[in-house]
Amino acid sequence: MRVGVLTGGGDCPGLNAVIRSVVRKGVDAYGFDFVGLRDGWLGLLQDVVLPLDIARVRGILPRGGTILGSSRTNPFTHEDGLRRVRDTIAAHDVDALVVIGGEDTLGVAAELSRQGIPLVGVPKTIDNDVAGTDCTFGFDTAVGIATEAIDRLHTTAESHMRALVVEVMGRHSGWIALHAGVAGGGNVILIPERPFDIDQVCEQVKNRFKINYAPIVVVAEGAAPKEGQMIVKDQSVDEFGHARLSGVGEWLAREISERTGKDARTTVLGHVQRGGTPSAFDRWLATRFGLHAIDAVRDGDFGVMVALRGTRIVRVPLADVTAKTKTVDPSLYDEFEVFFG
Amino acid sequence: MRVGVLTGGGDCPGLNAVIRSVVRKGVDAYGFDFVGLRDGWLGLLQDVVLPLDIARVRGILPRGGTILGSSRTNPFTHEDGLRRVRDTIAAHDVDALVVIGGEDTLGVAAELSRQGIPLVGVPKTIDNDVAGTDCTFGFDTAVGIATEAIDRLHTTAESHMRALVVEVMGRHSGWIALHAGVAGGGNVILIPERPFDIDQVCEQVKNRFKINYAPIVVVAEGAAPKEGQMIVKDQSVDEFGHARLSGVGEWLAREISERTGKDARTTVLGHVQRGGTPSAFDRWLATRFGLHAIDAVRDGDFGVMVALRGTRIVRVPLADVTAKTKTVDPSLYDEFEVFFG
Amino acid sequence: MRVGVLTGGGDCPGLNAVIRSVVRKGVDAYGFDFVGLRDGWLGLLQDVVLPLDIARVRGILPRGGTILGSSRTNPFTHEDGLRRVRDTIAAHDVDALVVIGGEDTLGVAAELSRQGIPLVGVPKTIDNDVAGTDCTFGFDTAVGIATEAIDRLHTTAESHMRALVVEVMGRHSGWIALHAGVAGGGNVILIPERPFDIDQVCEQVKNRFKINYAPIVVVAEGAAPKEGQMIVKDQSVDEFGHARLSGVGEWLAREISERTGKDARTTVLGHVQRGGTPSAFDRWLATRFGLHAIDAVRDGDFGVMVALRGTRIVRVPLADVTAKTKTVDPSLYDEFEVFFG
Amino acid sequence: MRVGVLTGGGDCPGLNAVIRSVVRKGVDAYGFDFVGLRDGWLGLLQDVVLPLDIARVRGILPRGGTILGSSRTNPFTHEDGLRRVRDTIAAHDVDALVVIGGEDTLGVAAELSRQGIPLVGVPKTIDNDVAGTDCTFGFDTAVGIATEAIDRLHTTAESHMRALVVEVMGRHSGWIALHAGVAGGGNVILIPERPFDIDQVCEQVKNRFKINYAPIVVVAEGAAPKEGQMIVKDQSVDEFGHARLSGVGEWLAREISERTGKDARTTVLGHVQRGGTPSAFDRWLATRFGLHAIDAVRDGDFGVMVALRGTRIVRVPLADVTAKTKTVDPSLYDEFEVFFG
Repeated sequence: MRVGVLTGGGDCPGLNAVIRSVVRKGVDAYGFDFVGLRDGWLGLLQDVVLPLDIARVRGILPRGGTILGSSRTNPFTHEDGLRRVRDTIAAHDVDALVVIGGEDTLGVAAELSRQGIPLVGVPKTIDNDVAGTDCTFGFDTAVGIATEAIDRLHTTAESHMRALVVEVMGRHSGWIALHAGVAGGGNVILIPERPFDIDQVCEQVKNRFKINYAPIVVVAEGAAPKEGQMIVKDQSVDEFGHARLSGVGEWLAREISERTGKDARTTVLGHVQRGGTPSAFDRWLATRFGLHAIDAVRDGDFGVMVALRGTRIVRVPLADVTAKTKTVDPSLYDEFEVFFG
Repeated sequence: MRVGVLTGGGDCPGLNAVIRSVVRKGVDAYGFDFVGLRDGWLGLLQDVVLPLDIARVRGILPRGGTILGSSRTNPFTHEDGLRRVRDTIAAHDVDALVVIGGEDTLGVAAELSRQGIPLVGVPKTIDNDVAGTDCTFGFDTAVGIATEAIDRLHTTAESHMRALVVEVMGRHSGWIALHAGVAGGGNVILIPERPFDIDQVCEQVKNRFKINYAPIVVVAEGAAPKEGQMIVKDQSVDEFGHARLSGVGEWLAREISERTGKDARTTVLGHVQRGGTPSAFDRWLATRFGLHAIDAVRDGDFGVMVALRGTRIVRVPLADVTAKTKTVDPSLYDEFEVFFG
Repeated sequence: MRVGVLTGGGDCPGLNAVIRSVVRKGVDAYGFDFVGLRDGWLGLLQDVVLPLDIARVRGILPRGGTILGSSRTNPFTHEDGLRRVRDTIAAHDVDALVVIGGEDTLGVAAELSRQGIPLVGVPKTIDNDVAGTDCTFGFDTAVGIATEAIDRLHTTAESHMRALVVEVMGRHSGWIALHAGVAGGGNVILIPERPFDIDQVCEQVKNRFKINYAPIVVVAEGAAPKEGQMIVKDQSVDEFGHARLSGVGEWLAREISERTGKDARTTVLGHVQRGGTPSAFDRWLATRFGLHAIDAVRDGDFGVMVALRGTRIVRVPLADVTAKTKTVDPSLYDEFEVFFG
Repeated sequence: MRVGVLTGGGDCPGLNAVIRSVVRKGVDAYGFDFVGLRDGWLGLLQDVVLPLDIARVRGILPRGGTILGSSRTNPFTHEDGLRRVRDTIAAHDVDALVVIGGEDTLGVAAELSRQGIPLVGVPKTIDNDVAGTDCTFGFDTAVGIATEAIDRLHTTAESHMRALVVEVMGRHSGWIALHAGVAGGGNVILIPERPFDIDQVCEQVKNRFKINYAPIVVVAEGAAPKEGQMIVKDQSVDEFGHARLSGVGEWLAREISERTGKDARTTVLGHVQRGGTPSAFDRWLATRFGLHAIDAVRDGDFGVMVALRGTRIVRVPLADVTAKTKTVDPSLYDEFEVFFG
């Protein structure tokens, strides 16, 4: 049996750990052959493959990024994309695919599965917004990096002179902001799921100064104020063609400064959150996902995604999980309200 | 309502995070008063209390250890221990206890609960061996520290000259060894749940040298060879009166060296694994445990322990969880066998 | 003998380590008494003192910030500032001062020394721009944090899709940018001492993409393009009354993106660089500075600053070091040119 | 011009950073060719070479270990070793060598230089015991790792129940123990340069318990008690044929425990101290050493070693530095005595 492996979407610590365990178990336990598809769906579209064997996956467990490359290419946006995917699969005698990716990549996988292509999905995203699994690998690493940054800001906060704003990743969901904000002891946590009131934020900031400790505001890049409050400073378009407001963190620091009379500074962590070695938890989860994904291939159990449920790895239908984004539940957010303000 | 809080057993990163969130929510949301009991059950036995309020818990979220102190005292081993516990509770008008501890501490809590003392338990242990919860706080931090140590050893392993043995914590369960061993890419993982065969270990070591990469052996302090294989080098007694073999790591290095002719070196992490700041995950979990524990107190839902199930915090009867230790399931260990040897 | 201690200027990891060693040696070896002056020169101006003894300095070695507080107050900008300083000194029977600070604080110290006030200076600044010493404590910590951030960006850079800009501290000198840029393997390093040519930066960026690896641009917050190139996007005034351009990092990302057609993203580390625990080197240096400063006090050798020369701690006249800022020598910058572009 | 590069002796973070900068500047600035010699002097003895060019050194800056391999082979212990070295040099048209190593490797280099072989030395050792340079790369990384471990032990020390012993590297010199002990706030620091009195150590331990804080004892692996005090528990022979006492750390814990009645535990860091990514400082120093070494080759200035003096890189005659080991000066050790006990 020959298995093709691909990684799609943005960088995520743990991708290499999945690839390694898929290949190690596939070869050692089941005698499978492997072929790597370069740069996600692009490799299938353009027939670009990489050799993939035990030697190739040695030493990659702790390394960020992906040895297979990645892209955001979607075969269904190309004329005869599906045919070309089928051709590449046939040309290399590939019997099944292991597809490692986030919402977009798994959405394509679900559709290809419906079209009869045998595949198993593995969820990844630092944003933790894939449905059907307790969490995804990459998320714990990102939260750890953001928390460490917040920890360092407390030193300055203790001198009670400045408000400190930290902008973390999360365009559509506030998981990183909420987890890092709670773990780091942030006083204000702003997430995309809940438009904020800038007046109330400034009130919380002022309250904080009163107890001789400066506020730390943790804001997801996708968080936005209530309608009518945002003064758009810069409108640009990101690489996926979406308009985006650049710098809610920078904007918040200016507003806080103007409205409270206190100096405010911003830290924008950016891609620092998705790079470097995966945390121990992410390596553990990614390794288990890989082992269970290749088991599903061996079982001929296609069209599924491996997922974490408690401490067990289960299989869920791809069709079920790609229909929705997992956002932060309001009741979870409210759990922490005693720490805000 | 006045709530007493105590922490029992060994150090564990996250204890302070629990104390903080219990007090913050208890005061701010429910208007409770608090009193700290010093050094675990000892404080109740000897009537030693500490003031505990919002000011006292400020800034402790990222700090290891416990501001309340800890001990391994068991009130039931003292004559009239139960009466003295009741007296202290009465003397300070304490209406309920929040008890944060591992197996032993929670076992006492279960018994006190049966005797009618109103309390809620919070599970803690770096060893992850408390039943009824997916995991305990402190464990993720310990695994992270051990994994980072293993990562560093890979540099030496690449020079393929020496076998490297890492002894990690885990007297009765191999959770830390298994998680850190898998996350760190160890080649041999030895846990208390499964007596090992020293001949087979040496075989794995030799195989590893053949591929020009030195083996990394991760061993839990409580792991032991099959009957008849251990040559007892040093017999001593630990602080709890149990006989213990000192240094399975040191012993392994000597055996490997003698049997394979290769140099072998040992790293013994010791208490390094239970100190320092908790990981972001442990702070998140400890904070949630604290919030839910005080909710249980408010609900008058006593005799329970808060626990993690998937992404939810639930309440489980203390009587159910203190009857057994959670050890590593053989099927979980076997999941990783393609990486061994 | 009674010694007053104060810390002035911005946060800097290692301040507490100096305070601790000054007090430990002063008390244990020389039998001195101590008094802390709150918030730098402000404490002397307004007669706000703190008790300072062995118990007070216990456990502060690894902690960022300063237990004495800090400010940027300059007594010479207050009418009768000098008289009030003398009054506070007299009121508390202070025989000598230990003044821990950067350029501004030490400049005041030099002037007070000229006016006859017995004091010893200790240089601190994460920017490393105090003259007369090989380096200052705080700098190594800041460089370490910035380097770790750059390390993480390499993961994304390997996917060769985006230019990555990291803005680090350094308003007037490029020490952090140069050290972290070299240690992190940055391809473009921009410092205040050398106005840059945006066209040349974009050329280097394009060259880097050609070798299938994205560029990492490390820029000091005070770096600026050659005259005529900067399009001022936002003009604001910082807390010290200086006009400042906000966000050379953000500006660079936009320019690079527009001029090269490649996506570019920015990380702004901000105050993360000056918080948290000091590195081992900074603790070592700060501890030695403290020990030698109190020796100078004991010797009655006033008007000097302790300084690092090679591996030795020496004393240099404050008057010599406060006349100039230590900027990056062009020949040192040029040493690394083979790595640029 | 063709330059051969080799690395000898034990692992040391920063070796790859030197190789990278030697090659980058050699190729880009001077147009040199390079050849790598495998496993230190062994490569020259047995004519085993590796290709070495810009592509080969890409990405190695942050990686521990050495891409050229290393060994402790000494050509002068082989009959006709010198002739074979000359033969290999001639066979590959090598015009000069860059030799990166510690005391032993540089000693061989000094002798080969006397025999007319053109070479430049670069000092490396985590132990910091090479004379003629303020410090060596690798040392800062090792001290940082040991300090972080000590930091974590303070959490347990605060519970004042146990004495904690940390054994760090340093067979012949106490640099790591002294720096990490001072930076980590150790109460007892034991180094090979100064035989210790076990009675006095136990006295210090007892004093520490009296102030409700447990002692942290930092001991270099080569430290030993005064004559007559050591009860030899285990005598073994290390890989270099020297007899060594195994485990001064383990021995100390037992003695402390028996003599003071307090529980004592040991952490043995072992090879963890020499692995993993180099610190920012070590990368900076290693990079500069490499750049200056290839400059010396270009200048035809052979028989020298590059060295750090203050902030400058200088060249010193190899003959001067290999005659002696740099041990800890008693006056430096005594500088810190107020912190002991």
